[in-house]
Amino acid sequence: MAFSVAVAGASGYAGGELLRILASHPELEVRTVTAHANAGERLLRVHPHLASYADLVLEPTTADVLRGHDVVFLALPHGASGAISAELGEETLVIDCGADHRLEREEDWAEYYGGDFFGTWAYGLPELELSGAETKQRTNLERISRIAVPGCNVTAITLALAPALHRGLVQPADLTAVLAVGPSGAGKKAAVSLLGSELMGSANPYAVTGGHRHNPEVRQNLRRAGGADVTLAFTPVLVPMARGILATTTARLSDGVDAAQLRAAYEESYGAERFVQLLPDGEWPRTGDVTGSNRASIGIGVDERAGRLVAVAAIDNLGKGTAGAAVQSANIALGLEESLGLPLDGVAP
Amino acid sequence: MAFSVAVAGASGYAGGELLRILASHPELEVRTVTAHANAGERLLRVHPHLASYADLVLEPTTADVLRGHDVVFLALPHGASGAISAELGEETLVIDCGADHRLEREEDWAEYYGGDFFGTWAYGLPELELSGAETKQRTNLERISRIAVPGCNVTAITLALAPALHRGLVQPADLTAVLAVGPSGAGKKAAVSLLGSELMGSANPYAVTGGHRHNPEVRQNLRRAGGADVTLAFTPVLVPMARGILATTTARLSDGVDAAQLRAAYEESYGAERFVQLLPDGEWPRTGDVTGSNRASIGIGVDERAGRLVAVAAIDNLGKGTAGAAVQSANIALGLEESLGLPLDGVAP
Amino acid sequence: MAFSVAVAGASGYAGGELLRILASHPELEVRTVTAHANAGERLLRVHPHLASYADLVLEPTTADVLRGHDVVFLALPHGASGAISAELGEETLVIDCGADHRLEREEDWAEYYGGDFFGTWAYGLPELELSGAETKQRTNLERISRIAVPGCNVTAITLALAPALHRGLVQPADLTAVLAVGPSGAGKKAAVSLLGSELMGSANPYAVTGGHRHNPEVRQNLRRAGGADVTLAFTPVLVPMARGILATTTARLSDGVDAAQLRAAYEESYGAERFVQLLPDGEWPRTGDVTGSNRASIGIGVDERAGRLVAVAAIDNLGKGTAGAAVQSANIALGLEESLGLPLDGVAP
Amino acid sequence: MAFSVAVAGASGYAGGELLRILASHPELEVRTVTAHANAGERLLRVHPHLASYADLVLEPTTADVLRGHDVVFLALPHGASGAISAELGEETLVIDCGADHRLEREEDWAEYYGGDFFGTWAYGLPELELSGAETKQRTNLERISRIAVPGCNVTAITLALAPALHRGLVQPADLTAVLAVGPSGAGKKAAVSLLGSELMGSANPYAVTGGHRHNPEVRQNLRRAGGADVTLAFTPVLVPMARGILATTTARLSDGVDAAQLRAAYEESYGAERFVQLLPDGEWPRTGDVTGSNRASIGIGVDERAGRLVAVAAIDNLGKGTAGAAVQSANIALGLEESLGLPLDGVAP
Repeated sequence: MAFSVAVAGASGYAGGELLRILASHPELEVRTVTAHANAGERLLRVHPHLASYADLVLEPTTADVLRGHDVVFLALPHGASGAISAELGEETLVIDCGADHRLEREEDWAEYYGGDFFGTWAYGLPELELSGAETKQRTNLERISRIAVPGCNVTAITLALAPALHRGLVQPADLTAVLAVGPSGAGKKAAVSLLGSELMGSANPYAVTGGHRHNPEVRQNLRRAGGADVTLAFTPVLVPMARGILATTTARLSDGVDAAQLRAAYEESYGAERFVQLLPDGEWPRTGDVTGSNRASIGIGVDERAGRLVAVAAIDNLGKGTAGAAVQSANIALGLEESLGLPLDGVAP
Repeated sequence: MAFSVAVAGASGYAGGELLRILASHPELEVRTVTAHANAGERLLRVHPHLASYADLVLEPTTADVLRGHDVVFLALPHGASGAISAELGEETLVIDCGADHRLEREEDWAEYYGGDFFGTWAYGLPELELSGAETKQRTNLERISRIAVPGCNVTAITLALAPALHRGLVQPADLTAVLAVGPSGAGKKAAVSLLGSELMGSANPYAVTGGHRHNPEVRQNLRRAGGADVTLAFTPVLVPMARGILATTTARLSDGVDAAQLRAAYEESYGAERFVQLLPDGEWPRTGDVTGSNRASIGIGVDERAGRLVAVAAIDNLGKGTAGAAVQSANIALGLEESLGLPLDGVAP
Repeated sequence: MAFSVAVAGASGYAGGELLRILASHPELEVRTVTAHANAGERLLRVHPHLASYADLVLEPTTADVLRGHDVVFLALPHGASGAISAELGEETLVIDCGADHRLEREEDWAEYYGGDFFGTWAYGLPELELSGAETKQRTNLERISRIAVPGCNVTAITLALAPALHRGLVQPADLTAVLAVGPSGAGKKAAVSLLGSELMGSANPYAVTGGHRHNPEVRQNLRRAGGADVTLAFTPVLVPMARGILATTTARLSDGVDAAQLRAAYEESYGAERFVQLLPDGEWPRTGDVTGSNRASIGIGVDERAGRLVAVAAIDNLGKGTAGAAVQSANIALGLEESLGLPLDGVAP
Repeated sequence: MAFSVAVAGASGYAGGELLRILASHPELEVRTVTAHANAGERLLRVHPHLASYADLVLEPTTADVLRGHDVVFLALPHGASGAISAELGEETLVIDCGADHRLEREEDWAEYYGGDFFGTWAYGLPELELSGAETKQRTNLERISRIAVPGCNVTAITLALAPALHRGLVQPADLTAVLAVGPSGAGKKAAVSLLGSELMGSANPYAVTGGHRHNPEVRQNLRRAGGADVTLAFTPVLVPMARGILATTTARLSDGVDAAQLRAAYEESYGAERFVQLLPDGEWPRTGDVTGSNRASIGIGVDERAGRLVAVAAIDNLGKGTAGAAVQSANIALGLEESLGLPLDGVAP
């Protein structure tokens, strides 16, 4: 018998992608969708692409509406999930796609987000190797009732750099990451800077010099993977594609490390992972190849002259970057096959 | 009286942009356009956007056709300009938009291009500060009859990093640059990897780990600016816009350097430059804002946690990246006002 | 037990989309993929998005390689499928995504394609209502071993206009259709006119004034639906999106016909169709909402001043326009549930 | 001595394009720019592409600020220009880029816009041939102090169809027009439907079945050109490019009319027009080729089977569609050379 599901914040892009994935999930059954401004509307009017949900109507986002489902996915603005999840009992699996429960250190929350801090939940990146541990983060998600889904940019950078840091093959100081990102990651909010006219034909950097809210989260991940604090210069650049993140990351090689060692490390990390694909030597990922999928595609190489590892990761910000990760984590927590209902192939061209 | 001009390789994108700029240049008059496969065709059929040139027909690219003009712009595949320019006397100003005469070191040519090396010409980046010199590169272009136009990616990275290197404010080791680039820089050649279907909706890295041909040239520039060899990890990423380069560069700060010193340095370098615009603190350039112009727009800041300068430069790869730089250099060599005929404003949105 | 499947022409865009859909089809199992120039390569190298097929290698496209499968999908250039399918026995279901077997009249073939004519196969548009028949085209596909998949533009125009023509609510003379189309419909061929640089930022018409090869096929469909020859002015326009067709069609109303009659007609035609969605009054389809799906989304209305029906249809040219239609038809022919394995929701935004 | 200019509504896209064109106009000198919400900001902050205007600050849009200039360009929301222009004397040339003064019939205004009607001004489409007149609309703009600039979609459709209607070569009934349009025509307003995420990868129709506000205006033009009321089914489709309009129009041929007659007619209409380019037989315009220019590019042909003229026009909605037309009209009214300061070549690719 399927688990009953509610999606809160269903009118946004993350909510829409959750529903798209869940429509073909054999064990999760969407019963309830909620929204704020769009409450009362037919879901299909808000998301005309979701023909599977012809009969659903958006309800208001309240604990009363969400209560009683086996699984509740939250796709709410940051700051909104703490209060509402407190009203849902531990018998409900709550998967938060927002930022509220990702950070371990309250001072990071205060600096980058502000407002009340509602504590840290299990972090929904199963493939993350942990310093000093035998097992990956996956283990920490089993039979858990609260999961925080990683930020999309964070997932891309983490998957690109963690294997090398975990094994000490690169130095934790002096990491760099530049991300080409599609605007759907910024949400479905009316803002001049996100207009098609402003974005088409242009590459637009933002939150340069460390101001992006995903900054403390990615440093936290890399610290957990490698066991040491890292320094990272991280710059996101909006480019004219609706979806996708291409993270181009670099790290200084530790003394004596060569390309073969690095390749062996990444193969060890990801060889058995269904949703992280390590490309052969000389091939590099493209975001178009992961559109609509829960796959991260990663290429690595050494720039000999620069003495740096270059690791490039492509994900769909709404897929492996948000909704796919949420469903993957839910599968683990519920004891289901981890890959259930999750698309592996991208929609290309 | 105007100078007579021929454009060789006029059927490509660089040739087209040269013609577009020259159409409104008061002192340069296009008399002859040449091409290889398209010889014999009306120019307007090859470049339907160039309505100004309704009567021109493409002639074959030979020295006989090019000889006798005051100025010859070459927009040819690499390896093609050495032989043809040898047949043009020193009374003709030859501006080469290709790579043949950019590199100082023959071993760099052999490693990245191969084939005969035809020697180094004066380098067409007037704004470049030179280590140990009182004057900028501009001075070296006056009354010269042979000029090599910089590579487009090279110009973006050089303008972003040179002022800091020139003054020792950042370390020459451990530079990084990731570029979001439009495909017009790759030329008008039929290749599956450049199809609209492959590019739209995707970010596609290429020539990762140091293989891009612009690599030795940018290191050469930064060496000339700073006086020391540099190490640089440089990765270009094709993004879905026809034109534009956004170079996101980083460099480790030298000891004790702060943001104010850096800003003062860039103001010193670029304050009087018409075609290099330094944005105020906290503002960052967008490629859409320089489309069609000869302007480079640069934003700088310090990522305090990472201990790095972040300098972002936006140019139009066909404008300041190629055709604009060619005309600007020609103006200098001919003793004309440097900015003559060159667009300053971008075509946005 | 699943049916064994071969896909010929698997290296192109249509072949890739067939494979993407078939990867999650519970009863069709891809055993063999073939190509021409790419024979011998790993499929994953040609289609990096198809991670499901990590082990497949492209074989040459020959009858020997294709023989012995239960189902063979052909995604070949026109003119290539006649000979090869003649070598496959009637025990093999052959689904031709090319044009070779669509046209009823040999003179249409001679005029628009030329070369040998290999005869007409059952036409793979199940939803098409037929003049003078009780049943739709679906019935003609049951237990058939040869099916011709419609052209992508043809499907969009046909679905938009057929219900009104079938019932005589609009006049067969004086139909118009303008299509906004993505370049993937033109295939994965290296041509300057299909370069990203030529397409991004531009809307480019082609095959204006009736020259498009889909022209006789769409007139054939509308004749079959309405019982009379039609006249149609049909213009395709390439627009900057990799996938998608938006067909804006108009037709003169027959005397006395009003909007309510038209809506009733379309509801009758499509109310029970899973893959044709009729939008409510005042809503119009967007191609982004059907990307990656097998759904056609249709909006209709009456322009009172103009005295015309306006019917707008959105499909994914590779989905309902090609690969989805192929699988849907195969399902019918094999006696499977018609919708098996076919995506209903689009990948948006 | 140059004429002094103010641009009201300078913060929007039309205002920005006016300023970009005026920056290189030898006889018009921008002294004042005004805005509503952005009043008090540096212009360069609102339009980072307009480096020419480094020192200008936006002032509030009031008659007091605008008074005293030789020319005032209004780029305001509809309904706003009537009151403000009433306060500017006849010694000021007022060019209204908005809709307020375009329509001749008050009932059209009431039906499509509503609110007070402020009367009809001279219509700024110099190339329009007028039924029963020896001269084009150009003549009506000489020494005039009030000019209404046409709507962008209107200009495209009018230029495509007017020559044929003017000579009776096509029938005024049963015209059709489908437009592929970029979103900059909808202005710089924050709306979810105009977000990059909603537009990229999608073709989105709107205002189908005659609801677009440009509808009465285009019928008015065609009536003025041909001398009879027309019926027109007109559908705009948003496509993923920031700028550009491609109007694909069709019209039923009058009895006995052939392609040669039509070509002769269009040559007669446009042969001497600098800013309307008639393409040779078999060539069709692309919007990318007119980007940033004041040129309309037009291709015509006959679809013999359909019995229809197909006339396709490409313009830049902000160029010939708005700001270019405004400056062209101002040049005429001021007695300057009509083409002064107006770009002819497009920025392509």
